[in-house]
Amino acid sequence: MQSENAAWDATTLEADVFDRNCPSRETLLDVTGRWGVLALVALDDGPQRFNALRRHVDGVSERMLSQTLQALERDGLVHREVLAAIPPKVEYSLTPLGEEVADRLRGLIELLEGKMPDVTAAQAAYDARRR
Amino acid sequence: MQSENAAWDATTLEADVFDRNCPSRETLLDVTGRWGVLALVALDDGPQRFNALRRHVDGVSERMLSQTLQALERDGLVHREVLAAIPPKVEYSLTPLGEEVADRLRGLIELLEGKMPDVTAAQAAYDARRR
Repeated sequence: MQSENAAWDATTLEADVFDRNCPSRETLLDVTGRWGVLALVALDDGPQRFNALRRHVDGVSERMLSQTLQALERDGLVHREVLAAIPPKVEYSLTPLGEEVADRLRGLIELLEGKMPDVTAAQAAYDARRR
Repeated sequence: MQSENAAWDATTLEADVFDRNCPSRETLLDVTGRWGVLALVALDDGPQRFNALRRHVDGVSERMLSQTLQALERDGLVHREVLAAIPPKVEYSLTPLGEEVADRLRGLIELLEGKMPDVTAAQAAYDARRR
């Protein structure tokens, strides 16, 4: 366990998301954040412009999607390309690492979507026990 | 697309986390929440009492861990067992569905941990471009 203020040294320490000081925890949060998961999996369908992506990720605000994409770009998971046009067009796509991450997130989402009948039954049983 | 207030009908609609009204999105948030991921993967090591789990999930508050476990129990992913003892002991474990979810999360975490050198290099390059 490192001290609270210790800088994490990527060259000598193995990453461990269970250590609150490890930068991998911050990256995990970017990836699994409320909109990070959906943006990555949406981009797994192919490169998209901001507004198309925003329609895809139903319910996200312009500001939140913009912050999410910026964090994912900084982590090297999303590539932002400014296309020469008037007005300039900006297109977002996954990097190879972003694709690997998105594949794993898609597997998780497909599992959950398929199991929703079990989940809703568990929720109903839980709520009934507490009534 | 359903209207904003439509109840979601698990018997007729396929789950879709991209639809803001679909309950699968709420479950995805429980699973991928700041502490949900870590609690599920920690419990994948085996049943644990609350305080052991709290030490494992470095940095979580008692209140947040308690809320997280309650949401995961309601979704049918975590089982809470009160063991007959004085004082009573409470042990948490994964349900079979919780194990499936935790396996996928573990795969995601292992990928990210292994790729942290790439991520930190991308972050440094991004920050340098903006300096």
